[in-house]
Amino acid sequence: MASIFTKIINGKIPCYKIAENDEFFAFLDIDPNTKGHTLCIPKKEVDKILDLDETTYMGLMAFSRKVGQAIEAAIDCKRVGISVIGLEVPHVHVHLIPLNGMGDASFQNKVSMSEQEFKATAEQIRAKLSI
Amino acid sequence: MASIFTKIINGKIPCYKIAENDEFFAFLDIDPNTKGHTLCIPKKEVDKILDLDETTYMGLMAFSRKVGQAIEAAIDCKRVGISVIGLEVPHVHVHLIPLNGMGDASFQNKVSMSEQEFKATAEQIRAKLSI
Repeated sequence: MASIFTKIINGKIPCYKIAENDEFFAFLDIDPNTKGHTLCIPKKEVDKILDLDETTYMGLMAFSRKVGQAIEAAIDCKRVGISVIGLEVPHVHVHLIPLNGMGDASFQNKVSMSEQEFKATAEQIRAKLSI
Repeated sequence: MASIFTKIINGKIPCYKIAENDEFFAFLDIDPNTKGHTLCIPKKEVDKILDLDETTYMGLMAFSRKVGQAIEAAIDCKRVGISVIGLEVPHVHVHLIPLNGMGDASFQNKVSMSEQEFKATAEQIRAKLSI
């Protein structure tokens, strides 16, 4: 069965999209640690990041770097953190999280955002992006 | 002033070393979330990962992948997580963390290890490594 992320890529589940190319896709996390929290995923459905072939892994990391730099330019934060855990959805995803303190990286503090805030945030990030 | 990690690279502060090449260095985190928690760093002292030049960033990610695969082969865990936060030491470091649950990725649960356990763990990981 297709993962929830494959359904997002295919447009079966809506998302606040940030970027897309032939191999990778970025969109806002719907349950964000902080405003601007974004997920970068390969279109190829693989469970564990260290099981990706080297080319796909390196491509995902290069894609995540560009998206992360756009987030850092668009969102007020000390820096953008990078996190790959993957115990909940079996489809590789790189979390890019605007950080102002350690708590923002813990996945225990969450922020609530309206649809309008999600749309505005995605637009701010896209405006800084050159993919 | 040299960062604590530069002092580790230069041998001024001891560490449980995992791997080293011309540009990068890996060693066990002395305050680990779980057994096998490792840090991968560039020898070049830069504060924020997204400020690294693209070549160094990609090299660090390739190095971290190989070290991560060795950890996954050596340590009993569901998978190895990747985390870059960097609010505490201003020298880029990639955390590679053996995960069995979300709590292992939170930086709030820590394990206590003896010097003997650190040495044995480093040796187990090095035995799986091909750098």
